[in-house]
Amino acid sequence: MKDTANMSPAEIRAMIRNNEWIKPTSGMAKGFTQANLAILKKDLAFEFLLFCQRNPKPCPILDVTEPGSPIPRLIAPEADIRTDIPKYRIYRSGELAEEVTDIMKYWEDDMVAFLIGCSFTFEHPLMNNGIPVRHIEENCNVAMYKTNIPCVKAGRFEGPMVVSMRPIPEKDVVRAVQITSRFPAVHGAPIQIGNPARIGIKDINKPDFGDRVTIREGEVPVFWACGATPQAIAMEVKPELMITHAPGHMFIADVLDEQYSVF
Amino acid sequence: MKDTANMSPAEIRAMIRNNEWIKPTSGMAKGFTQANLAILKKDLAFEFLLFCQRNPKPCPILDVTEPGSPIPRLIAPEADIRTDIPKYRIYRSGELAEEVTDIMKYWEDDMVAFLIGCSFTFEHPLMNNGIPVRHIEENCNVAMYKTNIPCVKAGRFEGPMVVSMRPIPEKDVVRAVQITSRFPAVHGAPIQIGNPARIGIKDINKPDFGDRVTIREGEVPVFWACGATPQAIAMEVKPELMITHAPGHMFIADVLDEQYSVF
Repeated sequence: MKDTANMSPAEIRAMIRNNEWIKPTSGMAKGFTQANLAILKKDLAFEFLLFCQRNPKPCPILDVTEPGSPIPRLIAPEADIRTDIPKYRIYRSGELAEEVTDIMKYWEDDMVAFLIGCSFTFEHPLMNNGIPVRHIEENCNVAMYKTNIPCVKAGRFEGPMVVSMRPIPEKDVVRAVQITSRFPAVHGAPIQIGNPARIGIKDINKPDFGDRVTIREGEVPVFWACGATPQAIAMEVKPELMITHAPGHMFIADVLDEQYSVF
Repeated sequence: MKDTANMSPAEIRAMIRNNEWIKPTSGMAKGFTQANLAILKKDLAFEFLLFCQRNPKPCPILDVTEPGSPIPRLIAPEADIRTDIPKYRIYRSGELAEEVTDIMKYWEDDMVAFLIGCSFTFEHPLMNNGIPVRHIEENCNVAMYKTNIPCVKAGRFEGPMVVSMRPIPEKDVVRAVQITSRFPAVHGAPIQIGNPARIGIKDINKPDFGDRVTIREGEVPVFWACGATPQAIAMEVKPELMITHAPGHMFIADVLDEQYSVF
């Protein structure tokens, strides 16, 4: 079995490109940033970029390719966005049409790929500080909820913010705020501490996306803006064609998580 | 004489709109953010937004208007970008054509206004910490230099980063790094400390833009990415029509400087 945690991002991307890895990327190339993918045609790209610009907490952009170019020059200049993700989803008019392992045949000259930050980037620093990350302990997906917080509209893109929740021991809440504040480029500080009702969450045990996680005695639910927001909102626009990664099947960049910290 | 330091942003913008103030905005509405303006037509707007996205240190975007809308909804939803700046510059094919006090007659349905952060936002926190800001003491413009640091290209937009320089007492350099690190959305931490030659600056006493300031015994020149960069680079593209604020005649937003700090 390959030691994928200690392989380089380039080695892992090569393995993925050759269809030797068609599984989730969690835990691979430890310390390196993983990113969400959203591909749109150029006529929607300006509005989507504007939407992300106006909503930086849920939509932290790590890279945007030049129209027609499949190369994410900023975060992985040797990569090809069309082949280097294990599994893609093709959406037509907002409906899932198929899942594929490369998108060469779907790629068009007016496509723009958005690589969007993911909370993995601040979960490692939390764990390095001895703060538990429940969904990793329970080996499931993070719990995500739709809120009553409206994103700032941009053109056709509008809708509520999606948040992720992590139960944090009460004594560690301040530290968790400090740690994630260091990463404004990847969701940053929490947006709510301890009061799900305040942001329109009716039942903490029924997440809208992902999995329910255990909240133990003495733990506080803490909410961060979530990178699922831009995808959920883009879907509502029902673009003729939109391509994303399949959940958990992320793009692995050449940038270290720590490089996104501001100090 | 009006106490413009203690007037609200809305009061000052009204005064400007009525042509009762056609002077620089330095020191007005103390504590509120002032922004640079760049207006381009939509065909260039996507590339310019991408350029800013890829170069966040020199090009910190505070707001982008919807194409055709003159309202900066994020930072001053009651303002009108066409009238609320004391003096504008009209550039045609990269050449200064005229200076005007409003741009109503130049406004077109496909124009997009970019409001870009300005180092005023972190200069107040520096001074609040007892760190001198020389160009304010000497009542002149900040010293700015072209560097040998290439910005990340986006479409037609490319060129070197412009930096601003502030001489900082050696004992305060670490503190100045800490303070400005709190403001990643407005240039953030310095990009160079004490070695102008390293970034291609031949003569510290000959800035490329702005004014020469005194560097005293025991002071270190510290360099920050500068908001003059996007304008300088946009000019190189020689857009058919580009509108900017006149130097020092800034847009005053409803957002407090402190609200741009990440903690």
